[in-house]
Amino acid sequence: MERTNVIIGQSGGPTAAINATLSGVIRGALNIGAKKIYGMINGIEGVLNGNIKDLTGLCTEENLKLLENTPAAALGSCRLKLPDITDEGTYKKIFAVFKEKNIKSVFYIGGNDSMDSVKKLSAYAAAIGSGIKIIGVPKTIDNDLSGTDHSPGYGSAAKYIAATMQEICHDNSIYNIKSIVITEIMGRDAGWLTAAASLPRQIGGKSPDLVYLPEIVFSDEKFLADIESVLEERKNIVAAVSEGVKYAGGRYVCDFDDRETDVFGHMNLSGTANRLKNLAKERFGCKVRAIELNTPQRCASHIASLRDLKESVKIGREAVFAAAEGKTGVMMTFIRKKLQPYKIKIGCENINNITNTIKTVPPQFINKARNGVTDECLMYILPLISGEPKLTYKNGIPKFFEII
Amino acid sequence: MERTNVIIGQSGGPTAAINATLSGVIRGALNIGAKKIYGMINGIEGVLNGNIKDLTGLCTEENLKLLENTPAAALGSCRLKLPDITDEGTYKKIFAVFKEKNIKSVFYIGGNDSMDSVKKLSAYAAAIGSGIKIIGVPKTIDNDLSGTDHSPGYGSAAKYIAATMQEICHDNSIYNIKSIVITEIMGRDAGWLTAAASLPRQIGGKSPDLVYLPEIVFSDEKFLADIESVLEERKNIVAAVSEGVKYAGGRYVCDFDDRETDVFGHMNLSGTANRLKNLAKERFGCKVRAIELNTPQRCASHIASLRDLKESVKIGREAVFAAAEGKTGVMMTFIRKKLQPYKIKIGCENINNITNTIKTVPPQFINKARNGVTDECLMYILPLISGEPKLTYKNGIPKFFEII
Repeated sequence: MERTNVIIGQSGGPTAAINATLSGVIRGALNIGAKKIYGMINGIEGVLNGNIKDLTGLCTEENLKLLENTPAAALGSCRLKLPDITDEGTYKKIFAVFKEKNIKSVFYIGGNDSMDSVKKLSAYAAAIGSGIKIIGVPKTIDNDLSGTDHSPGYGSAAKYIAATMQEICHDNSIYNIKSIVITEIMGRDAGWLTAAASLPRQIGGKSPDLVYLPEIVFSDEKFLADIESVLEERKNIVAAVSEGVKYAGGRYVCDFDDRETDVFGHMNLSGTANRLKNLAKERFGCKVRAIELNTPQRCASHIASLRDLKESVKIGREAVFAAAEGKTGVMMTFIRKKLQPYKIKIGCENINNITNTIKTVPPQFINKARNGVTDECLMYILPLISGEPKLTYKNGIPKFFEII
Repeated sequence: MERTNVIIGQSGGPTAAINATLSGVIRGALNIGAKKIYGMINGIEGVLNGNIKDLTGLCTEENLKLLENTPAAALGSCRLKLPDITDEGTYKKIFAVFKEKNIKSVFYIGGNDSMDSVKKLSAYAAAIGSGIKIIGVPKTIDNDLSGTDHSPGYGSAAKYIAATMQEICHDNSIYNIKSIVITEIMGRDAGWLTAAASLPRQIGGKSPDLVYLPEIVFSDEKFLADIESVLEERKNIVAAVSEGVKYAGGRYVCDFDDRETDVFGHMNLSGTANRLKNLAKERFGCKVRAIELNTPQRCASHIASLRDLKESVKIGREAVFAAAEGKTGVMMTFIRKKLQPYKIKIGCENINNITNTIKTVPPQFINKARNGVTDECLMYILPLISGEPKLTYKNGIPKFFEII
């Protein structure tokens, strides 16, 4: 096989598994005998700024193992939205860099917004007749990417949420007084992460009494009535609420003051639990606590899912093989062959079928009372959180790998 | 040895290690051949309400192992402040229950407020000439109990904070834009938990740039100047701030609206990071995120410190031996014999020397710029977070033990 150069970029929000995918791409590149393995520093921004790092020398087995257990994006990330491909200046610059470095394959690891970049880069490559292969590799804790059974990064976030929610339920159960805890869980448009809060119930453990997904229109009155109804049975209540819950009409529950938006127009959604805490406090007059699980959801490598990390490595490696087979303009995907026992295969899908469609939690995964998830939903998630990775600890602290 | 009955209670806030101490007391009671092992349900409240559970049948090795890895208080807890011992009604009731159940030793696991109960119970026992032994066993994530080198529960909380802060620092490092993360860490009067945020630096890992303890008077202007100074060197900043930081004059930084207080008159301190986030946002105009580490600090059994759990079991067992030797009106303590290699022994201290004095972080543990901790401080904490417990996982979720 011809010895080619490859380049890898990471883009969008961090996860506990995106570095495992980076390692997988590197492993794949080593497998096909790539000559040089380059990393974009801060994603496609690095290509535009000439900030590219030769990773070839770093790729020892020891480093790759550490990298696979390191959270966030070791190459740095960006949220750059590439312009339309008619804006030739940007693309000429990017492809000039690829040419200069003799790059034959480009691997871009990211979520919905990053797949938009993959789409544009491959459309431009096609338009100019370039043979450079452009492959998207999914990652998102939100699990909202369409075209794939699930996304790398989701399983680790789901495992963190399941473990943490069980612990919070224990924490909130110890006093013989009325107490309500409202936890806020990530997931702008899809409730996959919030649904994971109920996983401990599958092993007979404590899990939230009430679960609110963004797929269901939120109502303050229904929420308070639900709590009232649980309070008839027990004193200590835990509710899990997606940051993305909205009222009828589309207004976010947290949208009660000036909210920031990012370059993609996404609103900063934190504050949902705090808002609901105030409502519950006013109604019930008892102890109410708001807990925002916050960024640890996407970076808690210390309780990552071993299956998620292994699959993340695998899909990265397979991406390299797909490019070597001539594939381009695709996103790598997981196809679930069997629910029990869990079995997947890796495929790839035309990038034009992927971009900017959101995979939400389907109706049969949500209970009739619209304040919880079904066992069918939990059976879908459960295999994805399986197994505990063996991190390298030094003096009681996980050891991570840093590239930049 | 006479076969006696014992009773155990848990009181105050939950920790990841208080059940390990409960297990230790049970193990000790089994060792001395106790006939019945009772648990107070919801601490001393359970004694007053007749809510006592016979634990003798539950004490299998398998259950005790699970219990040692279960967060919060398996017997339930309370925040009941016992009245002065001149209020004989309450104490007559309590000691009548002890007599009825033929209880010879009472073990009360808790923090500062719980040790106040131990003090009163033992003073009453002395006043009426009762031979019942009353022993306090410390626990607090805050590590602010005096008379002991450290408290069970602190090591696990510190390990969670160290691991999580390192992950948050990675999470915040990926974008090539100015960004500030302000994390809020528990600890009303003492900065031990906040200090633990810097531990990753001891292994060359990422840790917060700025650390603010409640031992140091807080100033908004100094805080903003510190950030400005770090921003000259790098774009991504993480600050760790104790929830208990106060301005000159004694006003809490978070005290900007109506704050709740509990039965002990303690103010609910959450909101410090959010307040500082608004300040920083206004001054620097960049992305600023507030993260309250919140209750997972005290219940994250999935990343407890193995040494903390082992020591917690041991101090519980030794408490039983101390009672068997005739000790009463004492709190069990850790005495550090050697810093390197770490070596402790277990002792006990007259409860009257313990109650309601706060052990704060000493001046030599705080840096000259008063925005960080010294290596000497980290060398004190480091051995306490050592080792990773082997939890029992079922389908990827930690399995816990429930008593009530």
